[in-house]
Amino acid sequence: MNFKNTYKNFIIINPLMRGGIVPEEVQKELYDEKWMNEGYNVCHNCLEGRSGLVTKPPVKEFLEEIAHFYGGDYAEHTFGCRGAQFAVMKTVSELVKEEKYCNVVIADPNSHYSTNIAAEMCDLKVTEPPHSGYPEYKVDAESFAAKIEEIKKDKGKLPALVVVTHADPYYGNIAPVNEVGKICEDYEVPYMVNAAYTAGVKPINMKEMRANFLTVSAHKSMASLAPLGFLVTTYEWKKSAFITSSQKPDWSGRVFGKKIPNIFGCSIGGIPLISSMLTFDYVKERVKNWDNELKKINDFVDFMEDLGSGEIMLLGETPHRHHLLHFETPLFWEMSQKHKKKGFFLADEMKKRGITGIQKGLTKHIKLSVYGLKDKEIEMVKDAFYEISKNK
Amino acid sequence: MNFKNTYKNFIIINPLMRGGIVPEEVQKELYDEKWMNEGYNVCHNCLEGRSGLVTKPPVKEFLEEIAHFYGGDYAEHTFGCRGAQFAVMKTVSELVKEEKYCNVVIADPNSHYSTNIAAEMCDLKVTEPPHSGYPEYKVDAESFAAKIEEIKKDKGKLPALVVVTHADPYYGNIAPVNEVGKICEDYEVPYMVNAAYTAGVKPINMKEMRANFLTVSAHKSMASLAPLGFLVTTYEWKKSAFITSSQKPDWSGRVFGKKIPNIFGCSIGGIPLISSMLTFDYVKERVKNWDNELKKINDFVDFMEDLGSGEIMLLGETPHRHHLLHFETPLFWEMSQKHKKKGFFLADEMKKRGITGIQKGLTKHIKLSVYGLKDKEIEMVKDAFYEISKNK
Repeated sequence: MNFKNTYKNFIIINPLMRGGIVPEEVQKELYDEKWMNEGYNVCHNCLEGRSGLVTKPPVKEFLEEIAHFYGGDYAEHTFGCRGAQFAVMKTVSELVKEEKYCNVVIADPNSHYSTNIAAEMCDLKVTEPPHSGYPEYKVDAESFAAKIEEIKKDKGKLPALVVVTHADPYYGNIAPVNEVGKICEDYEVPYMVNAAYTAGVKPINMKEMRANFLTVSAHKSMASLAPLGFLVTTYEWKKSAFITSSQKPDWSGRVFGKKIPNIFGCSIGGIPLISSMLTFDYVKERVKNWDNELKKINDFVDFMEDLGSGEIMLLGETPHRHHLLHFETPLFWEMSQKHKKKGFFLADEMKKRGITGIQKGLTKHIKLSVYGLKDKEIEMVKDAFYEISKNK
Repeated sequence: MNFKNTYKNFIIINPLMRGGIVPEEVQKELYDEKWMNEGYNVCHNCLEGRSGLVTKPPVKEFLEEIAHFYGGDYAEHTFGCRGAQFAVMKTVSELVKEEKYCNVVIADPNSHYSTNIAAEMCDLKVTEPPHSGYPEYKVDAESFAAKIEEIKKDKGKLPALVVVTHADPYYGNIAPVNEVGKICEDYEVPYMVNAAYTAGVKPINMKEMRANFLTVSAHKSMASLAPLGFLVTTYEWKKSAFITSSQKPDWSGRVFGKKIPNIFGCSIGGIPLISSMLTFDYVKERVKNWDNELKKINDFVDFMEDLGSGEIMLLGETPHRHHLLHFETPLFWEMSQKHKKKGFFLADEMKKRGITGIQKGLTKHIKLSVYGLKDKEIEMVKDAFYEISKNK
């Protein structure tokens, strides 16, 4: 296998990646301290058989801090945010088996695919309230209440779960999580907020959202290596979400009493977990700077829209409340029609300028983020778009 | 969070870790090439929406090579070997729903806990044939046939799966995987071999085993960072094991046609996957050296048993065919009774000598491995045991 990192010194504007960039000093620490020497770097002092209970390095304390930081009571680390969402779906699917709820999950129509896949893995059907369509694509809290009523009427039972994607992966809209939380509380429907794109970049308090479950992606928004996520929950839900193993094979009679099946017994951790522990102080600090980041983000939107003179337009909410930006860009589409590389010209021109992250082949619509870039880097991104649009 | 790697320059003899030590030059490459810059390091050129289909870096080709290397037809990477086992259990649990098999899994009584947890996650019950007990703890192929017959009689249906742990995590015995494979083929029962402790250290051919599924741990036995595993399967089983998403939420009508629910849609990869790609050539070479390793391992057993003069004895098979060594050590237990640190004295004495990996608190039984250590390092381990046993 012979390959190198093509994007080693690139400016990254892929919105999936910006919240996950690992600070250089942490990369150095991971290398210098030889945390990459073995996969089981968390396990040298494991006495109880589960990474979340390890105190050297301080995983247990870290998980307590994670729970507190997000306004929850208890947290476990998982194989990515998708692992956390799976654990939630598994938890509520047990309630479906007990016939407390029907096997339906209400999720916003802008959910990340991992939400839908997690439901599919647990034999739960996803139903969606509508969004407002072009150009804002917003979801409305009241439509969740209507959907709950509809299901209650159709199925004779409440849905097993309501999921709201805090910032959605299509338009970067911030959903009305507090209002939906109030509705779920009134109906007594379990409520999960998928904060994969927000937890670690902006302040989050799941209690204010009235969320029972908060799912988090460390590699998406907490400046950490992949794969790593967290499931944060409340005292009330902790017991069922993190229920320990009860199976006992018949001949050996072995029990695995510390293992949590919903997170595969133990979610190991490895270097992604170490990286998250090392960047946590940095993450805690940076969320305080969110308003400044938002200003930079919206200034960038203004720049792009000015540059386009009507041929570049932000989709989703304005002013934008998240760093994921989705532009409609007829300007670039028209240019691509005349270009020998067709739709690939834009990503290609950006690459020539040391910038990566525009989906290859796309020019009608582009998604990008300048979150956490230095002013100088943002200027370079602006210059690139300027030059390309002026065909220089 | 303020913590350092306590075991930075230690000799590691933890049998869980020895097959997963990452070569120093790969650690350096991971750092120098900035593969730790972002979690989504595999995703820059993702066009199809699943890491296994990415060609830059060559993940797709790598997975093809993995399948070939282990004698299978198709492979996907997973969140550890536990993720691979879960995918297998999910696959056969669909056949249980279709009433083709009953909801019972036969697994050897020395299985790793992750096998039992994966079954529990998929509502499958584990039943076990016996092992031979002290001091060898061996499993016998014929006992699997007897167990299949028993279940067929009791339940009126065949078990959904037979699992054999190739090298078990308790005694490091090599199970009769070929013989069990023959039995499963005769009964037409799906057959999984958990090669977490063998694939990547010794030559493996799942076709010779007649296995339908081979589960592999990259961080346990393929010199890679955690969490990473592989599920390798055959053309026959590929379609059901890696079936793509079919759910379609009602309002948006979105489909996620490239995503594989059994592996969470996409298993991301990240730095564990990059590390495995970078160490793969090294792993392919080292398995050729397995016979030499075995000789060193059995020489070490002789040394320990000589040192103990009847008070140190290897459990499991002799000569040993795997690097995981489990010694019964009344010698150390007697010493611990007189020591002020009690059972902790042994791990503590090893630590003083720069060696880690003996489970803290244990002296009656110890598990360790000298796999892949340089001769000089093995001498240091021997010296340590010698000095401790002589109370020097």
